[in-house]
This record gives sequence, C-alpha cells and structure tokens, in this order.
Amino acid sequence: MKTKITKLFNIKYPIIQGGMIWCSGWELAAAVSEAGGLGLIGAGSMYPDILREHIIKLKKATNKTFGVNLPLLYPQVDEHIQIILDEKVPVVFTSAGNPKKYTAYLKSRGVKVVHVVANSKFALKCVEAGVDAIVAEGFEAGGHNGYEETTTLTLIPTLRPMIDIPLIAAGGIGSGRAMLAAMALGADAVQIGSRFVASTESSAHINFKLKVLEAKDGDTKLSLKELVPVRLLKNRFLEEVEMAYHHKANKKDLENLLGHGRAKRGMFEGDLEEGELEIGQVSASIHDIIPADEIIQEMIADYRKALKNMPIL
Amino acid sequence: MKTKITKLFNIKYPIIQGGMIWCSGWELAAAVSEAGGLGLIGAGSMYPDILREHIIKLKKATNKTFGVNLPLLYPQVDEHIQIILDEKVPVVFTSAGNPKKYTAYLKSRGVKVVHVVANSKFALKCVEAGVDAIVAEGFEAGGHNGYEETTTLTLIPTLRPMIDIPLIAAGGIGSGRAMLAAMALGADAVQIGSRFVASTESSAHINFKLKVLEAKDGDTKLSLKELVPVRLLKNRFLEEVEMAYHHKANKKDLENLLGHGRAKRGMFEGDLEEGELEIGQVSASIHDIIPADEIIQEMIADYRKALKNMPIL
Repeated sequence: MKTKITKLFNIKYPIIQGGMIWCSGWELAAAVSEAGGLGLIGAGSMYPDILREHIIKLKKATNKTFGVNLPLLYPQVDEHIQIILDEKVPVVFTSAGNPKKYTAYLKSRGVKVVHVVANSKFALKCVEAGVDAIVAEGFEAGGHNGYEETTTLTLIPTLRPMIDIPLIAAGGIGSGRAMLAAMALGADAVQIGSRFVASTESSAHINFKLKVLEAKDGDTKLSLKELVPVRLLKNRFLEEVEMAYHHKANKKDLENLLGHGRAKRGMFEGDLEEGELEIGQVSASIHDIIPADEIIQEMIADYRKALKNMPIL
Repeated sequence: MKTKITKLFNIKYPIIQGGMIWCSGWELAAAVSEAGGLGLIGAGSMYPDILREHIIKLKKATNKTFGVNLPLLYPQVDEHIQIILDEKVPVVFTSAGNPKKYTAYLKSRGVKVVHVVANSKFALKCVEAGVDAIVAEGFEAGGHNGYEETTTLTLIPTLRPMIDIPLIAAGGIGSGRAMLAAMALGADAVQIGSRFVASTESSAHINFKLKVLEAKDGDTKLSLKELVPVRLLKNRFLEEVEMAYHHKANKKDLENLLGHGRAKRGMFEGDLEEGELEIGQVSASIHDIIPADEIIQEMIADYRKALKNMPIL
C-alpha cells in the first residue's frame, strides 16, 4: 500500500474525486473508482430518492470502494444518512457542519468517515470526533469555501504537524505536478474537484464544461462571503452580485439576489449568464474534456515524471 | 549548476530572500548571500542615501551575488536606479509597476533584471520587456499583493507552460517541504519573505518578530484592496480598517485612516497595535527566530529528506 489513504480505502491511487453538487453523480464516481481512485457521489444537490437511485446504480457499476459526500447544511441530512446506511455505503465525506454530530453514529455502523475543513480549529475538532481522515481545503478551491482564506500551500503544512490521522489536500490540484506538490507538503492523498468537472462522465452541462476550458487566471472569485463563501466563475450573475456590493447590499439583499436554484441553473442546465458556476482557480490550467480514467492516468504519469526530474540540491 | 536560477545568479541554492520594507537591510541580505542564497535589500523603505549606505555595507560584507528589490510605485525610483548603477549592483528585482519602464535601461548597463508578477498578463509583459526571470507571487504572500487573488499553487502551473524564462515561486513558502512543492509545480527557485522576517539578521523590530511567532492560521488578511491590496497580521489597526469597511468607507477614508508611516511604525518601531504588520499566511508555521544561514540549511535538509520520502505511485 502506497499511502495511509490508499490503505484506509483499499484503493490503488491516492486520488479522491471531490463530491460536487450537480457535477458528480454515479457515472463520474463509478469511473473514478474503477480507475483506481475513490469516487464520491455529491449528495448536496440530490433529494433522498435521487441519492438512493445514484447509490444503487453506482454499486451495479463497480465493485470497488466508493463514497458519498454529504454537506451537513441541507435540511434532509437525516434522510440521507438513513439511505447511506440502508445501502451500505462504505465511506462518507461530511462537510459544512460540525464533525461531532454524525461521526460516532456512522462509525458505529461500520462507515468510514472523513470531514472537510479549512482551518486548524476544525481539524482538531475532527480528531476529537474520531474521524478516519481529514480533507483540508484551501482558498483556491471551487464552490463552498472557508472564511479564513487560507491557501492549500499554507494550510497543509500548518495541519500536518498537528494531527496524526491521514490528511487529504484539496483546492488548486488538477495535475500530477500539483499532486506531487501536495504530497511534498505532507498530504497522504489529494481530493480533486474542478478537473473532474471537465470529464466525460461528469453530469455538468456541456455549456459549463466548455466554459471551464476557457477560464484564465483571475476568472474566478470568492464571493457571497456574508452568506457562505463560494468561489464562482465570473459571469453576468457574479457581475450582478458585484453591483449589489457596490450599492452596499446587506445579507438579505444578497439572499434575494441569489434566490433558489442558481447552482442547478448554471452547472446542470447550462445557463452561463444567470446561473451560479462553481469552479476552482485551477480551471485556468484545464484545457480538455476527457474520461475520468484518462485524467487519473495522466496525473499518475505526470507525478512520476515530475518526481524523477526534481532538482537534487 | 542545479537550476536555471542558480546558474543565472551564480548562487549555490535556488533560494531568494524577498525584499521587504523595514525588514531586509544589508545585514539580512549579506547573511543570505553568504549562506548560498540570493540576498536582496528592500529599497522600498529607504531614502536614496540610506539605500547607498546599505549597498556599500553589503558589498563589504560579502563577495557573493546580491541584489536590490525596487518597488516602482515610490517617487524616488530614478534616484534609486542611479545609485544602483553607480554602486554596480548586479541584480535588481522590480515590482509594483510596469516592467517595460526600466528593464532595457538596466540590462544595457549590465544589471540582471527580475520582475514580480501576480498574473499571466504581466508575466507575458515581462517576457516582452526582456527580463531575465519572473517572480510569480501568490495570494498567500505578505505585504503588497495582486488583485486577482490567485494562489501560488495555481499561479505557477498556469505560468509555467506560457513562459520559457526562469520562474521563481513566491508566497506561502517557508520550509523545505514547501520549497519542494514549488519546484514540483515547475519553479526554478523560490523567493521567501516571511520566514526571513523571523531571522536574527532581519531589521524588523523584535516585537514584530515575536508577534510573527504567535500567528496562527487565519491571523492574516488581505485588506485595503481599494488602495493597494496588502496582507496584514490582525491587530488593532486592522480592526479599525474593518470597522471603516463596516461603515462603508470610501477610498479617501481608507487613505486617511492609513495615513503615513504605518508600516514603519509597526514593523520597524514595534508598535503592534497601531502599526501596519505585513506578513504572509506562512507565519502560522514559523516558530523560531534563528540566523538566516540556519534557515537556509534547515530548508535544504528538509527538502532533501522530503524528496527521499516521496510516495512512489
């Protein structure tokens, strides 16, 4: 076994595909798990029945380890958890909430539990809660993000000496070189979101996938910090948000502007102007839409090549 | 020679000590150059006569390559440049301005020129201007910063395929592991600021050095974006700035609040409450004040150890 994480999940490569609303259904998760990584269904955008359907399809598509990512901020969490237990999902990644709430219960039922954090305070809380591993996600990540704006390059070295359990780096990683960088910082694995948005199997709308390929550095922004900070690709909706800030919008104004269903509209229905487009800064380095297993094979090949060519000092 | 940068500057290790106002005088630069890196005098906080004095003392203290960092936003740039030429400074790092303005002139007089950028647009402008190398500095860096908020982990892989000249990574790097990460991303060297603030030879006030040791993750913030974005350690002054934002301060209000001499007051005179304390996110991982040559020796030892222990995938 190569790292603590490949051992923990019994997977070939230390690559986790991050759970992403509207982009990571059973097809993507199955492709990633089949290719030797750990695929996660993103439950955040799924009603309980839909989640069950995805889990059942995923189990038919692969015998390898898979998981579900469960943001704890949605109202139907308890129903989701019941389905996860009924369907014997082996791994759950929780995020956006208190790790103490569900970890012990899930673990008592044989589920491996990982929690996503963005700072050292919550990392220590996770250890107390008894999680099996931690995802530490930096400021450059797409979608929901931390308040402290700590980047992956500084977050991982801060957490590494503080915790003994396995540590997964997330945010800004989309290539074998970046994976090598994360492992150099002390991570035991990487969690990758944006790169998998632009995969054949991702359930993102083709308009959104193609838009990701066009992104340049500086084309994303961490916004809506008064609600939940979220990194978005610049578009007309984000301009409207910026205009609202310019006019000194308060929290209520922002909630009204955001409304309901913005994320679905953008990422799943392909409305690039009025939808919410969640993607990380690493989008500036994504230039093609390829199958998930090719993404993983490319990453491993790049990792090996870069490691061989590191300067000897 | 180990990398394009060690060759360019004829130095032993690909480690540049970043020019920092009030913290990097001749003593720090001499210690770094003597230890095998490239030491830079930070001219941003120096009147022309003071800069000349520092250069003369530095030349007496070492025969190795050294340089001057020159932010182009201060009014006395032309005088600084004349002194740099008079005193035959071999290397100049310019920042905070247009690389096309001085590069050709300096190069025609035999000076090696490096420019600091935070995005791909300016990186390409640097190549056109004929610089010898580029520093690409991420969002996590202390002090003056870019508008796009692109982190080091995503900036370096974005720029690497776009430019052929040597690339120096900056922002968030304070250990051998982080140096290894930067090299994995394709950098030819690293520029390090914050770690050298907490060195014996830094001219930072001891109060400020000790304050840096206490910093935890989340204790810095990129602020004053309407003026020039600057990453500061949280203190009473930053609280006053936050309060001003809360009261919808405009640019003029912020300029008045900042006033003059805040940076000197904080970093050089040690007023931790009312001064401006410029430091990077990597401060969360800085735990001791040691001589610059020990910092460099530790980094190289950590780099070698981490490289040897990288997971083979």
